[in-house]
Amino acid sequence: MKVVAAIDSFKGSATSAQMNQAFFQKIAASELTTVSVPIADGGEGTMAAIQAACGGSYQKITTIDLLGRPLTTEYLLTKINGQPTAIIESAKVIGLNLITPSSTTIQQASSYGLGLVLRQVIKTGCQRIYLTLGGSGTSDGGLGLLAGLGAKLTGQSLNQLNPLNNFQGIDLAPIKALLATVDLTALVDVTNPYAGPTGFAHVFGIQKGGNLPILKQQDQQAKKVVTVVKKQYQLDLNQLAGAGAAGGLGGALALIGAKLAPGFATISQLVQLPRACQDADLLITGEGQIDAQTDGGKVPLGVAELGRKMKIPVLAICGKRNAQVGCLSKLTLGIYCIQTGPVSLSVALEHERTLSNVSELGLNLLQTFFHQHF
Amino acid sequence: MKVVAAIDSFKGSATSAQMNQAFFQKIAASELTTVSVPIADGGEGTMAAIQAACGGSYQKITTIDLLGRPLTTEYLLTKINGQPTAIIESAKVIGLNLITPSSTTIQQASSYGLGLVLRQVIKTGCQRIYLTLGGSGTSDGGLGLLAGLGAKLTGQSLNQLNPLNNFQGIDLAPIKALLATVDLTALVDVTNPYAGPTGFAHVFGIQKGGNLPILKQQDQQAKKVVTVVKKQYQLDLNQLAGAGAAGGLGGALALIGAKLAPGFATISQLVQLPRACQDADLLITGEGQIDAQTDGGKVPLGVAELGRKMKIPVLAICGKRNAQVGCLSKLTLGIYCIQTGPVSLSVALEHERTLSNVSELGLNLLQTFFHQHF
Repeated sequence: MKVVAAIDSFKGSATSAQMNQAFFQKIAASELTTVSVPIADGGEGTMAAIQAACGGSYQKITTIDLLGRPLTTEYLLTKINGQPTAIIESAKVIGLNLITPSSTTIQQASSYGLGLVLRQVIKTGCQRIYLTLGGSGTSDGGLGLLAGLGAKLTGQSLNQLNPLNNFQGIDLAPIKALLATVDLTALVDVTNPYAGPTGFAHVFGIQKGGNLPILKQQDQQAKKVVTVVKKQYQLDLNQLAGAGAAGGLGGALALIGAKLAPGFATISQLVQLPRACQDADLLITGEGQIDAQTDGGKVPLGVAELGRKMKIPVLAICGKRNAQVGCLSKLTLGIYCIQTGPVSLSVALEHERTLSNVSELGLNLLQTFFHQHF
Repeated sequence: MKVVAAIDSFKGSATSAQMNQAFFQKIAASELTTVSVPIADGGEGTMAAIQAACGGSYQKITTIDLLGRPLTTEYLLTKINGQPTAIIESAKVIGLNLITPSSTTIQQASSYGLGLVLRQVIKTGCQRIYLTLGGSGTSDGGLGLLAGLGAKLTGQSLNQLNPLNNFQGIDLAPIKALLATVDLTALVDVTNPYAGPTGFAHVFGIQKGGNLPILKQQDQQAKKVVTVVKKQYQLDLNQLAGAGAAGGLGGALALIGAKLAPGFATISQLVQLPRACQDADLLITGEGQIDAQTDGGKVPLGVAELGRKMKIPVLAICGKRNAQVGCLSKLTLGIYCIQTGPVSLSVALEHERTLSNVSELGLNLLQTFFHQHF
């Protein structure tokens, strides 16, 4: 009997690898083949999941954050199919969690620092790069990133401020040589176009501190970018699903040749989850909170869909389960909460407690599923 | 496929019948044979469980409580094997939960009012009576009950005060006729003798408000009762397992011919749980809190042992699960908590929330066990 665990990290409590390991902790190896596949969906924990599967080391890098403050952060340098590959989590440079969103920050925040990171990584000679776009705090149409790489924007005074506000034109010629040999993939989990009612400004601007006048103005500017890019580079950012991801970063990256790829499916392939699941009798997945948003490309949905495709039953675990869980309830045999009784949020988030609850629940679920004691 | 639910009431949240029903609520009747057996172990909910299985009606009755205050309460009058049978929950008359325990109450509290109830029930002509002894607040050696029935105690000024304090002698002759035709069963879940280091005074006196001098004095008096009873009625209350139940009520009831029987096993037979479990593929049990005390004759342990005997797997559910759960973890395939996330105790206790969580967990567990969607 073989069981594969691919549980997302429980944000603030434990990594994916720790969760998988805890789930099997009370099972003797002789009784069950247990396989842990650390996983992520393009959010927090993507570097960790890929490192667990592919190895590699974290590289320190200095840049500026979304508000222009000096920042030292890191990216993962690993090998995939023998090829050096960099994994960059955008949120570590331009994350919404790095700031307190307001109507001021949304007008200032720029992805320029992420462009600096990308430029440095390319200059190391790394030719294959994955960027996760989740959790961004910028709404600059990705123009900051282009400027950080070295593209020339017109209408700007200072590159570090949100360059969308005064956008006039763009020239990619200065970065053509830099990008010539690099293979870029952006992991996106939204399908929004660049501008218009479902564009980045109107859909994601509110949570980044915007109000209606700001969103309208940013969307006007986004439309101008669409027009200029279409005319100059024959790419229609409003016909491109995902161009609106991360405040337009999706579109900017597409403009420089990046492939936009879904987070879970891409990472699932990178860590070879489907291969690990061959001949499995049961898949285990989960994430900190399972709710209606889990349907939007999150780990549990991805694993559950893989299970359906491979005809393997799936169980999910979580720290909190909302009344509405989307179609996950139909795709799994059960969604279980790890709490063992009434408990406050802060206690529930404790690392050791989380792992100990998961170990106990893991033993119980495997016993219940296989009808035997382990 | 057949599943039997015998979940104890969740104290303060839902009855046993409600819990069983909720567990199966999301299962279509055509897909699974579901059987609900309301159950109890001699604690709260015993009357309700027996009424659910055997029918009957609640009878109002007036008496005094353990501190001598007027009390109107009720007992269950039902039929078992065609014979009228009364079920009396002692705690409804002399329950610890009716008072605030203190060194004063333990010296005053008397089971006299329970004797009055028993006398009235016998006088209605009912010849078969079950008394649950759990949850008592008295530590009177059961002498109050005997006095309330009509026995003559010597050394007393007022029957309503704890008659153990000044006990001198007892004469059961006045109640011989009353008891001649009645078949009494006391449901006890402790095996303590009447007096001595493991007698009722020393073991249960603290939680009833006693301090060491009081407990010593009460144990001295308890020893005097043992001596008198042994000499006069040839019954050694210190050789009788369970005589120390409910502050000595067990011994007093044995003295008037009652059988001392274990709560779960007796109720399980009354509600015909073993018969209901025949051909079952899975048993479901549970109680509000599952902890090390669950080993002491509680419902989940009883159902789990029945499952072992009948070779049927058992799953348990609870509102709170302690780290230590005694041997229940070895007797069940899994012990699951019904909470769906961090939650306060007061919210966790809400009736509707409890039932809705149990319904969801029930669906998930049955799907996980049977490997199919319901």
